Amino acid sequence: MTVKEVDVVVDNAGTKQAMWTYNGTIPGPLVRVKQGDVVDFTLLNHADNEQSHSMDFHAARADVLDEFESIKPGQTKQFTFKAEYPGVFIYHCGSDSMAEHIARGMYGVIIVDPAEGYSENFPKADREYVLVQGDLFAPGTSADDMKMGNGWKGALVNGRQFHYDPVHDPNASQTLESRPGERVRIHFVNAMINEAAAFHPIAGIWEQVWDNGNPKNVAWGLQTVEVPPAHGLTLDIVSPADRPTNNALVDHRMKHALNGAISVLMNHADADPKKGRGDQQLLR
Amino acid sequence: MTVKEVDVVVDNAGTKQAMWTYNGTIPGPLVRVKQGDVVDFTLLNHADNEQSHSMDFHAARADVLDEFESIKPGQTKQFTFKAEYPGVFIYHCGSDSMAEHIARGMYGVIIVDPAEGYSENFPKADREYVLVQGDLFAPGTSADDMKMGNGWKGALVNGRQFHYDPVHDPNASQTLESRPGERVRIHFVNAMINEAAAFHPIAGIWEQVWDNGNPKNVAWGLQTVEVPPAHGLTLDIVSPADRPTNNALVDHRMKHALNGAISVLMNHADADPKKGRGDQQLLR
Amino acid sequence: MTVKEVDVVVDNAGTKQAMWTYNGTIPGPLVRVKQGDVVDFTLLNHADNEQSHSMDFHAARADVLDEFESIKPGQTKQFTFKAEYPGVFIYHCGSDSMAEHIARGMYGVIIVDPAEGYSENFPKADREYVLVQGDLFAPGTSADDMKMGNGWKGALVNGRQFHYDPVHDPNASQTLESRPGERVRIHFVNAMINEAAAFHPIAGIWEQVWDNGNPKNVAWGLQTVEVPPAHGLTLDIVSPADRPTNNALVDHRMKHALNGAISVLMNHADADPKKGRGDQQLLR
Repeated sequence: MTVKEVDVVVDNAGTKQAMWTYNGTIPGPLVRVKQGDVVDFTLLNHADNEQSHSMDFHAARADVLDEFESIKPGQTKQFTFKAEYPGVFIYHCGSDSMAEHIARGMYGVIIVDPAEGYSENFPKADREYVLVQGDLFAPGTSADDMKMGNGWKGALVNGRQFHYDPVHDPNASQTLESRPGERVRIHFVNAMINEAAAFHPIAGIWEQVWDNGNPKNVAWGLQTVEVPPAHGLTLDIVSPADRPTNNALVDHRMKHALNGAISVLMNHADADPKKGRGDQQLLR
Repeated sequence: MTVKEVDVVVDNAGTKQAMWTYNGTIPGPLVRVKQGDVVDFTLLNHADNEQSHSMDFHAARADVLDEFESIKPGQTKQFTFKAEYPGVFIYHCGSDSMAEHIARGMYGVIIVDPAEGYSENFPKADREYVLVQGDLFAPGTSADDMKMGNGWKGALVNGRQFHYDPVHDPNASQTLESRPGERVRIHFVNAMINEAAAFHPIAGIWEQVWDNGNPKNVAWGLQTVEVPPAHGLTLDIVSPADRPTNNALVDHRMKHALNGAISVLMNHADADPKKGRGDQQLLR
Repeated sequence: MTVKEVDVVVDNAGTKQAMWTYNGTIPGPLVRVKQGDVVDFTLLNHADNEQSHSMDFHAARADVLDEFESIKPGQTKQFTFKAEYPGVFIYHCGSDSMAEHIARGMYGVIIVDPAEGYSENFPKADREYVLVQGDLFAPGTSADDMKMGNGWKGALVNGRQFHYDPVHDPNASQTLESRPGERVRIHFVNAMINEAAAFHPIAGIWEQVWDNGNPKNVAWGLQTVEVPPAHGLTLDIVSPADRPTNNALVDHRMKHALNGAISVLMNHADADPKKGRGDQQLLR
């Protein structure tokens, strides 16, 4: 991956803000491997950047002072790790001030699919979506203010406020989609720097929830799940099979929901068959 | 249910505040059904009201744009849903601004008793109490301020600060009661709009806890349980059988506890046999 | 234990602040018993103190109005309780204002080892460390401000900011240690009065986590665990066996981490064999 300090669109109206990114997008590229795989990773801190940066994969066992060290603009850092634990993990920049590096957009998701595959308690889903929730601070907010939560102005879902919510934002053009009765799997990561997310599907119930996305950690029939900062998990929802419906996947904290953390899931017969599959699991 | 915008008493001293309610009380009426039941629900937005309102049952699979739509004063909305998932669920108003509608008191509890009944891991309790914790904002607080947490002044337990706590509030006249050694089941719902509740029984330990009140999600021997906004769960406590004792059921966040979220549970031989049973599970 | 209102060092630079303590330290002494043991406890509120104080053991079933009552300077309070529930529990002062008594340092840990001993799902660890995270408020902050979170300036780990983090604080002289591949058990207690801790091992993954430290409540392979105020749990981490590494055990809330809640765990061949054993489980 290449770190790029660039202006990035942060809402559906096209507003740009100076952000720091992996490969130019927020979140960075989705990484998906199988448990047992060895990941060979190289980070390039682009020579045009001003800051030192680094990479902290939550899926890795490593040395915080070695693999995760900061590198200066123009430098590269290569390391390998074996993905030993299954689940959904955040990756993020850990350079000083970590608060600012994460809050400016330096995060993404690595999914480690379990070696044992699917099972009765961890069935295959019909569609899978990745949702990463992050902070939006007012332009010019200092690292210290970010750290203390001052200057906070919104919640980003995959990089934009109300990214998939045409109900609350007329500029939104996308939604998540499924066909009625399909099992939709959400891989949810909270990339906010201070605040937990209370993740709830309006007009639905999480059929099963796996803490950290690990098949061993199954819970059943939850309405709302608290997701701490820098954590990820996997949640399934199954809509009624006999009719079209809509869910709104929200962070039920009103501060977050009403400032951007609402995503519409449309369950209808003519759902786009490509959505929630292949390269359309993390919709840009 | 009928939505009523009325002045409601919010503490034991009789202070009234302009609130929005289901049926005139905070929380609204307790709904209790069995898993598999079909609920036939009609909402009337009373013609004297000024706001549009709606109903969002967390126990329902539905269409957020249909069943949960907002209706104007004088209108009614009818829908049915099958209660498929067992447990303890919040219901609340989802109309704009959702933050204000919930913070002003539009919430309640629906318990869906499991179809399979009781079991070794989900035994019958001797008494059951419903506790709903909500916010109290200063009169005149704007919807935007509520959303951001500004103007917050207290925590309500079943609609009043220190509702069941004569220790901290001389005006309090009620307590929860049980006989020594009884298994007391608390159905706890967090109706606060932004903040989690850290629910703890002072001088006791949660014997068992079921996330979302679902018998499949059992945990053992917990001191404190984090309950995110808009979530509910079931917790049992068993007091010593050989002596009278008192517990204080608190949100261990000091901001919440010391502003209203403390409830006394008296365990004594002459406990009122009606409390925690029938229509005295949610004490008004 | 004796309550002492004394000036206590709160950082690695030797800064002292007027605090309230059990036995003169923050946290108070580590108490470790076996499930089934009867604890015979006596609290002395030293005659030189100005405040009333008390003791609330989260591991005890008792009467909040009897055993946990407040006593004046010069008085003693004795009571016994049977430690019936296994796990990791906070103890703290419950006297008015509880917010101030806890925030000024009146807390500690009692570990109740399970009667059944170790098992496949709760194996013996090679080393065990106790970490208690607390608040640091600016000197002179009022009890009311503490309650509302105003005047907060830092996170203490076992009584000091960056206690075990020479990376972020050149004055820090200690770290946690283990040998590569050892199973390191952390007993973590959140003694903060309002805020949850998002506990994460940088460059590692929690191998197993037991909610409340109870062997029955096992989860697997978690990156981050939300710990509400006044709760405790047990988490194991296993470093790679074939090389030296370093982890940073952090509260991933940036507000907490960057104000003190980072602890370095060094995994190297010449780890001090005494650390994480005997009286070096809670490093002063």
